[in-house]
Amino acid sequence: MNEFDFIKKIRKLAEAKMPSSDLLRGIGDDAAVLRSLSGSDVVVSTDLLVEDIDFHRDTTQPNLLGHKALAVSVSDIAAMGARPRWALLSIGVPNDVWRSEFLDRFYEGFFQLAQRYSVGLIGGDVSRTAEKIVIDSIVIGECESGHEVYRSGAEGGDLIYVTGFLGDAAAGLRLIERGARLHSQLTGEPTALPSDEVEADRYPVDHLLLRHLKPEPRVGWGLLLGDQQLATAMIDISDGLSSDLNHLCGESKVGALIDASSIPIDPVVKDLTGRRALDPLMLAIHGGEDFELLFTVKPENVGKLPARVDGVSVTRIGEIRDLSDGVQISEGSHTWNLEPGGWEHFGRMRYEG
Amino acid sequence: MNEFDFIKKIRKLAEAKMPSSDLLRGIGDDAAVLRSLSGSDVVVSTDLLVEDIDFHRDTTQPNLLGHKALAVSVSDIAAMGARPRWALLSIGVPNDVWRSEFLDRFYEGFFQLAQRYSVGLIGGDVSRTAEKIVIDSIVIGECESGHEVYRSGAEGGDLIYVTGFLGDAAAGLRLIERGARLHSQLTGEPTALPSDEVEADRYPVDHLLLRHLKPEPRVGWGLLLGDQQLATAMIDISDGLSSDLNHLCGESKVGALIDASSIPIDPVVKDLTGRRALDPLMLAIHGGEDFELLFTVKPENVGKLPARVDGVSVTRIGEIRDLSDGVQISEGSHTWNLEPGGWEHFGRMRYEG
Repeated sequence: MNEFDFIKKIRKLAEAKMPSSDLLRGIGDDAAVLRSLSGSDVVVSTDLLVEDIDFHRDTTQPNLLGHKALAVSVSDIAAMGARPRWALLSIGVPNDVWRSEFLDRFYEGFFQLAQRYSVGLIGGDVSRTAEKIVIDSIVIGECESGHEVYRSGAEGGDLIYVTGFLGDAAAGLRLIERGARLHSQLTGEPTALPSDEVEADRYPVDHLLLRHLKPEPRVGWGLLLGDQQLATAMIDISDGLSSDLNHLCGESKVGALIDASSIPIDPVVKDLTGRRALDPLMLAIHGGEDFELLFTVKPENVGKLPARVDGVSVTRIGEIRDLSDGVQISEGSHTWNLEPGGWEHFGRMRYEG
Repeated sequence: MNEFDFIKKIRKLAEAKMPSSDLLRGIGDDAAVLRSLSGSDVVVSTDLLVEDIDFHRDTTQPNLLGHKALAVSVSDIAAMGARPRWALLSIGVPNDVWRSEFLDRFYEGFFQLAQRYSVGLIGGDVSRTAEKIVIDSIVIGECESGHEVYRSGAEGGDLIYVTGFLGDAAAGLRLIERGARLHSQLTGEPTALPSDEVEADRYPVDHLLLRHLKPEPRVGWGLLLGDQQLATAMIDISDGLSSDLNHLCGESKVGALIDASSIPIDPVVKDLTGRRALDPLMLAIHGGEDFELLFTVKPENVGKLPARVDGVSVTRIGEIRDLSDGVQISEGSHTWNLEPGGWEHFGRMRYEG
């Protein structure tokens, strides 16, 4: 199959799975054309995934990688309080990958997530590379004008919340580095992309590995917080709580105080890392790629937060302070500055937008 | 300089050069936010440039590469008859490039072109790579609703035009492959990015090399043809006339007849390739990356085409026929099928949109 035929195949798949009625043109022209709703704003984000920096071919699966490529950009859109609508995907692969089933499986995972959130694939680019796989994932979202949630809106006294658990993805990455593999990789069965909730008890290792390999963007929470204008500021935790809280505080020109004991840590992490001399709190504070949402809420709006959205709860972890107070964390009677110490130590950093 | 500092620097540069007043948020949040004009459509394109597939570090210059990365996506927007407005840029570089002046020079070339067309850089991603440079360039444009020019609008009897000259970029690439280098690379002076027109006589080799290394998107022509609804169909010539005419005809479900003797060939190409046993006509027909516009016009609208836009003229090269006539080319009394034979032979192909 040459590139022409491949593009035709992807175009057919994309068209078959296309949810949007206000798309004027998808794959097959020089550019995609959208008619944006009047009274709405357009939100755009892009994420580059590079082999051997962001992932390793032998520790993930093509369908999981397809899922993750889309998930990381959808998460950015969720963190704006917007609805993900359209995606473009640029992918470069070496010849051996081109000749394998890699791309079929990759797009399988991609479309499975895309369909869950009614995201249409409307364009992209395919190229060969000399040796390594490279993926750039672009997602375009939409939200009612003025309902975007920026990093810059937090004010002193706002309460700080996170969705889900923190540190799972970092724990999963550490397990992978120490040789852990998905049950399905050991048995040869393809991973069925199970829901995290159901499988955590039965397959605790798989649960943590999948939290790293197949992150779930918190689209439901993002939409609710944007639509109902409950969040004053929001960011997704891609670089780690310590880095991303500092980003949010930097943009908002505020300080913060986090209570370490309130940071939600997955019981599975406590169980599996304790035996491996990993510190769950350090994973939760500095570990990247959880793709949970970190957001701030006015005290008078706290009562409006639902207990769960899509099965995921939120936890209050601290409070916004004045800029001069700095970004701090307290554990018992000790309080120290929370220095950014996340993902950039792995040799990568993103400038988002 | 770490990635945080680098992103701050790029953000400052982007903000200093930001032309758009209707941008709600650029670099520095989870995503960029645009307020699109009511009554306008949003047009999006992306292009992946991979080292040693699309360019070689030793035969180009970082500023030229920055220019080209933006130019190729701007060209797609022009080919839709739309106005380029915003760009996102994802770039991955290995450590040695990170530590060099490469990125400063790259963004210099990028912003130089961006400012010419009032395109604002509103986001992107920066990553390390193991070894090779990779760039994904995303451009978002805007056009009056319904004024987009698709590949699919050509009808039997429409006349076929191209902007500028064809085959220059392919000739430039052949010269590079045979060892030619920019005067500035031989002398160590940075290339001043001269206008093509002025320099062709003095530096004919540089002229052709720059046509490959620093393509000029035909933004003025694209806008005019879209705004005034003069083109029934349009595509930019990135894969080569033979491939791109077949794309246009395929989408429009028509045939075409091209007159080989009317294809505009740069006198510089005739002169320089003749001595090197290269066939200018073959370069013009099958050579990729000219980024000229190929478009179709109703006979009654031909009189409305201006002689030149931004110093670039257009040439009529043939006529749209019925689908059953196929896509053909005639030279004297000979007529043959014009098979796609362009850029994909170099191992790459794009699915645009």
